[in-house]
Amino acid sequence: MNTIKTIGYAAYSRGATLTPYVFERRALRDNDVAMEVLYSGVCHSDLHTVRDDWGWSYYPIVPGHEIIAKVIGIGSKVTKYKIGDHVGVGCLVDSCMECDQCHRDEEQMCRNQPTYSYSGFDRITNEPTQGGYSKHLVVREEFCLRIPETLDLSKAAPLLCAGITTYSPLRTWNVGPGSRVAVIGLGGLGHMAVKLAAALGAEVTVISRTAAKVADALDLGADKVLISSNEKEMLNAENSFDLIIDTIPAKHGLDPYLPLLDIDGTLVIVGQVGPMDEISTFPLLLGRRRIASSPIGGIRETQEMLDFCAKKGIVPECEMIRMDQINEAFERMEQADVRYRFVIDMASLAHE
Amino acid sequence: MNTIKTIGYAAYSRGATLTPYVFERRALRDNDVAMEVLYSGVCHSDLHTVRDDWGWSYYPIVPGHEIIAKVIGIGSKVTKYKIGDHVGVGCLVDSCMECDQCHRDEEQMCRNQPTYSYSGFDRITNEPTQGGYSKHLVVREEFCLRIPETLDLSKAAPLLCAGITTYSPLRTWNVGPGSRVAVIGLGGLGHMAVKLAAALGAEVTVISRTAAKVADALDLGADKVLISSNEKEMLNAENSFDLIIDTIPAKHGLDPYLPLLDIDGTLVIVGQVGPMDEISTFPLLLGRRRIASSPIGGIRETQEMLDFCAKKGIVPECEMIRMDQINEAFERMEQADVRYRFVIDMASLAHE
Repeated sequence: MNTIKTIGYAAYSRGATLTPYVFERRALRDNDVAMEVLYSGVCHSDLHTVRDDWGWSYYPIVPGHEIIAKVIGIGSKVTKYKIGDHVGVGCLVDSCMECDQCHRDEEQMCRNQPTYSYSGFDRITNEPTQGGYSKHLVVREEFCLRIPETLDLSKAAPLLCAGITTYSPLRTWNVGPGSRVAVIGLGGLGHMAVKLAAALGAEVTVISRTAAKVADALDLGADKVLISSNEKEMLNAENSFDLIIDTIPAKHGLDPYLPLLDIDGTLVIVGQVGPMDEISTFPLLLGRRRIASSPIGGIRETQEMLDFCAKKGIVPECEMIRMDQINEAFERMEQADVRYRFVIDMASLAHE
Repeated sequence: MNTIKTIGYAAYSRGATLTPYVFERRALRDNDVAMEVLYSGVCHSDLHTVRDDWGWSYYPIVPGHEIIAKVIGIGSKVTKYKIGDHVGVGCLVDSCMECDQCHRDEEQMCRNQPTYSYSGFDRITNEPTQGGYSKHLVVREEFCLRIPETLDLSKAAPLLCAGITTYSPLRTWNVGPGSRVAVIGLGGLGHMAVKLAAALGAEVTVISRTAAKVADALDLGADKVLISSNEKEMLNAENSFDLIIDTIPAKHGLDPYLPLLDIDGTLVIVGQVGPMDEISTFPLLLGRRRIASSPIGGIRETQEMLDFCAKKGIVPECEMIRMDQINEAFERMEQADVRYRFVIDMASLAHE
């Protein structure tokens, strides 16, 4: 299979609005899968990358790392997928496959730097990678996920980043029946954390500044809502959680939340925030509490999460948009005006 | 046994120099042990308390929570100790003994607030407690430690706080042969962390700003010294520790140290620091790294530590002082001018 001429939506310069971009996907290698993208989720990281907030962008850049696609071609040595299969692609498209982390199925922490779906460089040609806001994609077989038949394809895309980013810490910190989990922030990641923690059997509390989200939180599967502006409620809730999943996507303080952890409990910041407010050692010390952060999971764990969601009937809450609505969607996402994740119907992107 | 008239050194007001203070120890309860104090270690917390840095001091206050003593009387129901035994007392003199934490031998995190050797209140009379800078002490049997016969009494006192504060996180984070442990700060706590981690079989690295402490660090049992002002050395040392014990007793930043942790590694702040510099989520996220803090251990673990030190021949490096040198010792401790812990020879305190 030769190179594939395709079209995507790209930022041509730092912070630019996304506009159509015609480019080529590589000719299939022996272990490559070629696919037509059906749905692409919209993640905060996409916008950060368009703006080069993290200093590793290049232009033009095509974002998108929550990808649901249909296989349209396979390399000569591909064994796991055949034409017509539905596959998923997340943040990872390659890794060294040789280091201890890759051998432990933690390719996201590959010692030799994993290759990301975008803002990465192909390990063979060194060409910049381009993400899922595009009609076609070519990805190494080992980094494709199998989409279980019972998962709603039109809603599954956000599982590839928002899903695994919240599932991974829940598994790392052994959440199960009897666990007391709190979730701060009820956006794309937060709403998945609630659904997944509840499905794993935990007692789930949403921590919210106001009472405005109480009904939504309970609908998503939370058992309780804790209003963080209510001092008395916060005081009563001290020492009551084993794990707090903190999904606030901006600089903030942790001191108000740390006392809510029980002894040896952990607050896990998910996603990339950058600098945080000063922390005090007092609440950490008194309960031997911990602060951690957690990225996406590896391929094995991502597959486990997809299978778990299929089994439990879990899908993200999505708002479907057309490709040409992406710039408006970015603006709304910034104002937290989405319930809870935008998904681009890639059929809306014409391909000449 | 009636109340014991005793003498100690107390601060009579906030930040005052310590001067003699005559007071009474309570009449023995059934489960009490009366003791004559032989040696008393000098901890940073003593000075913090004299100055009321943490807002929980009262005056007059007698500091001291690293205590080696000889039993001089026992209550009618005491079974573990007899007159003439050598005992230790640390930061804890009582707890509720009924909560889940007390039942787990973690009285330091008693749900109903443990009673501290000083800046605490007796659970029965509500009288303020007074610490080990005094000739006599009366402590509930369950909160006395047995001093193994082979331990040098004149050097054992600092084990009761500096020792257990560093031993406890080493045990909590499962340090043993093959563990890669770094220690930041080579003072009273830091030098014990080096000795204990080495004795537990870990590979120990001291992190120091300058090369001035290299010989001392190696003498104490460290395998290596990492100079934190050397950017190249720091870069080469990324991802190389499972656990970092951070003993810096003042506000500081963690960002330079976090990348030194390997994946899933933890930096543990020991002792009470207060506010710390802003942290960045980047080094936490990329290696799923963790920040924690850890207080002293419980009574069972403290006894385990004492027995371990006796078995391994570990004692702190001490500089013996007279009771009337305490104010000078505070000044020198503040300037880190001590190798590595002051111990007061309580025989120097005349008792009329």
